[in-house]
Amino acid sequence: MYHHVKKLMYTVRVETPDPAFGNMLLEQFGGANGELAAAMQYSIQGLNCEDPERKDLLMDIGTEELSHLEIVGTLARMHLKPTRSDRNPAHADPLIAIAGGGGVNLFNSQGNPWTADYLKITGELDVDLRSNIAAEARAKIVYERLINFCDDAGTKDALQFLMTREITHMKAFAAALESMKKPAFSIGKIAPTPGLVDQFFNDSTGEGDYGEVDARGPWNEAGAWQLVEAPAFQDLNVADTDSPSIYAESSE
Amino acid sequence: MYHHVKKLMYTVRVETPDPAFGNMLLEQFGGANGELAAAMQYSIQGLNCEDPERKDLLMDIGTEELSHLEIVGTLARMHLKPTRSDRNPAHADPLIAIAGGGGVNLFNSQGNPWTADYLKITGELDVDLRSNIAAEARAKIVYERLINFCDDAGTKDALQFLMTREITHMKAFAAALESMKKPAFSIGKIAPTPGLVDQFFNDSTGEGDYGEVDARGPWNEAGAWQLVEAPAFQDLNVADTDSPSIYAESSE
Amino acid sequence: MYHHVKKLMYTVRVETPDPAFGNMLLEQFGGANGELAAAMQYSIQGLNCEDPERKDLLMDIGTEELSHLEIVGTLARMHLKPTRSDRNPAHADPLIAIAGGGGVNLFNSQGNPWTADYLKITGELDVDLRSNIAAEARAKIVYERLINFCDDAGTKDALQFLMTREITHMKAFAAALESMKKPAFSIGKIAPTPGLVDQFFNDSTGEGDYGEVDARGPWNEAGAWQLVEAPAFQDLNVADTDSPSIYAESSE
Amino acid sequence: MYHHVKKLMYTVRVETPDPAFGNMLLEQFGGANGELAAAMQYSIQGLNCEDPERKDLLMDIGTEELSHLEIVGTLARMHLKPTRSDRNPAHADPLIAIAGGGGVNLFNSQGNPWTADYLKITGELDVDLRSNIAAEARAKIVYERLINFCDDAGTKDALQFLMTREITHMKAFAAALESMKKPAFSIGKIAPTPGLVDQFFNDSTGEGDYGEVDARGPWNEAGAWQLVEAPAFQDLNVADTDSPSIYAESSE
Amino acid sequence: MYHHVKKLMYTVRVETPDPAFGNMLLEQFGGANGELAAAMQYSIQGLNCEDPERKDLLMDIGTEELSHLEIVGTLARMHLKPTRSDRNPAHADPLIAIAGGGGVNLFNSQGNPWTADYLKITGELDVDLRSNIAAEARAKIVYERLINFCDDAGTKDALQFLMTREITHMKAFAAALESMKKPAFSIGKIAPTPGLVDQFFNDSTGEGDYGEVDARGPWNEAGAWQLVEAPAFQDLNVADTDSPSIYAESSE
Amino acid sequence: MYHHVKKLMYTVRVETPDPAFGNMLLEQFGGANGELAAAMQYSIQGLNCEDPERKDLLMDIGTEELSHLEIVGTLARMHLKPTRSDRNPAHADPLIAIAGGGGVNLFNSQGNPWTADYLKITGELDVDLRSNIAAEARAKIVYERLINFCDDAGTKDALQFLMTREITHMKAFAAALESMKKPAFSIGKIAPTPGLVDQFFNDSTGEGDYGEVDARGPWNEAGAWQLVEAPAFQDLNVADTDSPSIYAESSE
Repeated sequence: MYHHVKKLMYTVRVETPDPAFGNMLLEQFGGANGELAAAMQYSIQGLNCEDPERKDLLMDIGTEELSHLEIVGTLARMHLKPTRSDRNPAHADPLIAIAGGGGVNLFNSQGNPWTADYLKITGELDVDLRSNIAAEARAKIVYERLINFCDDAGTKDALQFLMTREITHMKAFAAALESMKKPAFSIGKIAPTPGLVDQFFNDSTGEGDYGEVDARGPWNEAGAWQLVEAPAFQDLNVADTDSPSIYAESSE
Repeated sequence: MYHHVKKLMYTVRVETPDPAFGNMLLEQFGGANGELAAAMQYSIQGLNCEDPERKDLLMDIGTEELSHLEIVGTLARMHLKPTRSDRNPAHADPLIAIAGGGGVNLFNSQGNPWTADYLKITGELDVDLRSNIAAEARAKIVYERLINFCDDAGTKDALQFLMTREITHMKAFAAALESMKKPAFSIGKIAPTPGLVDQFFNDSTGEGDYGEVDARGPWNEAGAWQLVEAPAFQDLNVADTDSPSIYAESSE
Repeated sequence: MYHHVKKLMYTVRVETPDPAFGNMLLEQFGGANGELAAAMQYSIQGLNCEDPERKDLLMDIGTEELSHLEIVGTLARMHLKPTRSDRNPAHADPLIAIAGGGGVNLFNSQGNPWTADYLKITGELDVDLRSNIAAEARAKIVYERLINFCDDAGTKDALQFLMTREITHMKAFAAALESMKKPAFSIGKIAPTPGLVDQFFNDSTGEGDYGEVDARGPWNEAGAWQLVEAPAFQDLNVADTDSPSIYAESSE
Repeated sequence: MYHHVKKLMYTVRVETPDPAFGNMLLEQFGGANGELAAAMQYSIQGLNCEDPERKDLLMDIGTEELSHLEIVGTLARMHLKPTRSDRNPAHADPLIAIAGGGGVNLFNSQGNPWTADYLKITGELDVDLRSNIAAEARAKIVYERLINFCDDAGTKDALQFLMTREITHMKAFAAALESMKKPAFSIGKIAPTPGLVDQFFNDSTGEGDYGEVDARGPWNEAGAWQLVEAPAFQDLNVADTDSPSIYAESSE
Repeated sequence: MYHHVKKLMYTVRVETPDPAFGNMLLEQFGGANGELAAAMQYSIQGLNCEDPERKDLLMDIGTEELSHLEIVGTLARMHLKPTRSDRNPAHADPLIAIAGGGGVNLFNSQGNPWTADYLKITGELDVDLRSNIAAEARAKIVYERLINFCDDAGTKDALQFLMTREITHMKAFAAALESMKKPAFSIGKIAPTPGLVDQFFNDSTGEGDYGEVDARGPWNEAGAWQLVEAPAFQDLNVADTDSPSIYAESSE
Repeated sequence: MYHHVKKLMYTVRVETPDPAFGNMLLEQFGGANGELAAAMQYSIQGLNCEDPERKDLLMDIGTEELSHLEIVGTLARMHLKPTRSDRNPAHADPLIAIAGGGGVNLFNSQGNPWTADYLKITGELDVDLRSNIAAEARAKIVYERLINFCDDAGTKDALQFLMTREITHMKAFAAALESMKKPAFSIGKIAPTPGLVDQFFNDSTGEGDYGEVDARGPWNEAGAWQLVEAPAFQDLNVADTDSPSIYAESSE
């Protein structure tokens, strides 16, 4: 059950409304990495979750994101209100001006409606926690960009609060994942095919006009890695016996 | 530049077409965690990337996913072909039967069109790598579920190949992230607010009828964590001075 | 600020999971007239609202709908859980089975993702209240249909609870609108054109093969109503001077 | 069967094309409360309707909205035509300029494609009429806002015509609903639970920094209303026996 | 201006309602190649069109498609009506049963909402006519597939009527395009680059396990065609001087 | 199987980044007639195709379009990069600036996500070829418009290359269709109804205020054409025996 208290989690003070910035802010209200997406992703994962401890974690953070949604919406509303009557901001955001009368709605910064396609929910707890760690990292960088485009001190303070909380959540989700003590790269129950799992396919080769290189790095050399050169041409280049053939590997 | 060779990366053999399973397979063709989503997410991250080594990694794997898309599409096509003329499967998937003549299209398992809203692309390399690690974990569990619902041996082999490659990619993205040597939980350039970042808000409290608990765990106790009880009521419960006030913290 | 308590607003008891009915239930979870749509429509109207009394009303009901979302999600989760492993329900709802592992997500009964396009938010308070009255009427009839297709006694009880609350909300919104004491059919500030506003255009004429009639009723006769016959042909049928000409009316 | 006559229902005269205003106008062409949405909502309700008199009403108004769509499209086309070759309006609306060659398409004012998700069609006649009353109220306020942002006299005249017709339709739908003589708040056939239906849940409490109040009004006091304080905490605050317990009520 | 007459363009007689077939029929009501898509594509092209003769053609056919929409909707309504109360069809199409009360709405055969993304409108008349010719071909084959899955004689007759009209329209659009007397393959005003325009890039090479071949045909041999082998490797295979270099060609 | 070579198919040189033009370019990256749409439409048609020669054609061109996608993305990236830090372009395209950090994503020129609803895939080869001919014509005119709005010489050269290739593809698809030697207007197997197929319905009549006419032309006169005047009124105007009755025709 939910209860609402008429206080913002962070009191918002806007000196000078800036409708163009208000539009940008909508990215965190109704956008792909915004607060409704976070609230819904975690709360619905929580609803599906059968691990009581981590279910609580998901509900804690899912609920906090609803309070963040309220902060961002209040901020955006303050910045966008002039859109109701001033012609320039209204021309720049007709959806807010004409359909919304200067009020906010669940659109992103270019007026696209929020969609559940933004959510990553699999019902596999450790997988969901990884999706959440990534989601918090995305939300953090988006708040940082908003701060960089923001002139209003009160708005910046609120964004700093919200940005900080994303790191808090990222740490909490990482601790929850780590405490599940799953082996590295172990997802689900079916093991990957040995050998094949350590082959790195070099599917993009050559050098480009803008400094592109065909690189080696910790992701395809040393350790167990085997490099497979240009798999598409393994059959044709039969003389190139240095690289293991994926077909031998996979057809057994 | 891309080149196509008329060989599948994994040769597909289907003994008995199973249109209901073919529908399920479409989840990995045109679905949220499917092969087109992977191919586009990595390739476009690669196009935006300014780190030449990791740009190569993104293009390698982005290109491999296109070859996976071709495998999944071929498998789904084989399983769905009877939909063209058999009434039962056609009733179960009229979009394939009537609009597609038994052929595949970029829909998910319930006929929703593929949308770029599935993609997570921020232009911040370490954040994108985290999104990719999570994406590979999701794709792995989806392939595992498909294997569990599959009766056809040849199809199972191909799915095992594809599932294995997701773990390969997960390892490669993790190695690429680790080799960037960024401090833990450091995203972008603006630091989170000290103190506030270590507060865990207990926004969901009480116990539920189905065994729900209000839990402590590594995500809200020990280390630097401070637990803030029910922030929505901090103002009302002023006597409860044990929990730090978020308002004092955040309004400075 | 929001707070979550680990109790459902109505305790849910499901005797026999029925995945086909679980699918139907999703219509009220992630569907066009469902609980998230209600929660978001009222809460965001509330965020935009500048009448403090009715703002409170919008927040009260918006918050209650979040608790309803939790009830419906819990019910649907219980009915859909077999989808994780049973083949028949999995074939019928592959999105839940394959992508969601048997858990719910913000989809409607045919797997379409929830979208903010479902919301009706104009920032004009009396207009928004009318949209809400209609929304509650729609939600009520949807719950009634669900009850009619439901066999499980515990589920029926919960649906009766939810259906009842829609009528409660409908009454509350109607009282809020009435207490604004606006004249009937007065919307905004600009008056409609006198005369023209009372003309009913008979744009669909004749009788049909299935009993269709060209009807007169309180919506086009008596009172101030003037009937304009087939406006598309007013210019051609110049002799038909009985019907007022809309062109004379509107071109002045 | 439909027939088209090459006359606009209201002859449009535009002195000075204004592409920024043309963009705004698209909200009523391909937007959520626009003329296609109205035409389709009423016509399809009419197609489903089994009450011959009100079916005729729905077809009359549904058809008139098609003629309105033609007026709005013609107006928008005139205002947007410079987008084909002038750089500034083309930069502001590249979808019209580049994809459409300066012509209109079924997009809203920010380029989102029209979607049937805008429609509210339940197949329950009195519910549909309520949705239509609300839809007309929304369309009226949108036209009023367009008039307020419009400088061109001929365009204003056409918008006044269209705005007036929305009130006409609102009156007609209200008369049709009233003439069905359904008791107030009676929707469908299943009665709401007595007692519970009169409880107003005070789910949002306290006072806010911007003047938010916890209000009493005709929607939660007097008459049959019973106020239930903070239902989420009813179990915890067991001493508070003044408010009726919803659990006692609903668990029987 | 539009007028509606209460007669179907083709009188529909359904002996035995078949809800599964009714679902299929929705593909032509609210689907990608259905009657609303046709009506809107041609009517809006007509609205934008500045060639008075072909504008009339577009309005004639656009209007006829509205009458077809009415026929298909009536047919689908008759077939889907049992969905309102019968459990099996309701489980198969819960969106119709629960949200729509057995009535139709602008969804396709799997419940996706109609979207203006289906439309192809460029504002370039000859290009639009080509899009229309292709659209009619698609609609024809979809009707043919529906006929093949249909058991009801009356429904088949109506589908035959509708299918025939698509060929009528295809012929009319082709005649309209031909009578513009544009040179073959001349689109717009800017000429393609000579030489380059005649090069066929062989970007997919080799032979496949299912009989795939690397083919020559009228689309890449004889006439002016020059075959460019594997452009991606032109730089690497510098000795292969038989194929013209695209870089020499295009960098001048 | 796909392979990627680190060379663009056309080397891109941008002198002066122009973010407003970069936005326009996105229409060909993630827009309805853009390169991803082309790549996916042809490649998936190819995957479904059972005619080996034309399957090869579809794969050749589908693969080339992936290389075009890479060119357009690189161009757009160069033009949009300033959006990352410059306020004016960031305000004009907040989705690129805030969510994307100045990088491209699969959006069209107004920020709508790419959707598979753009694709036209029927699994009927000659029909698909017609859709492709029309698609290439649309892409050509869009590139021409982009060239007309472009100031940068290097960008213009690249666009000229891409535009030229669309005509190449249009010619190849036309040759492939022609070489199938199907009779004109023969689609599928079921023949249209003789007589009815040659009737042109004059559904839009009269003359309009902007020069609209009721036209005769090669699409409704001469040859086999029979003109049916205003079918909606054929029953009413029974005396008008000159026009053939569609009801007599179609009810047999």
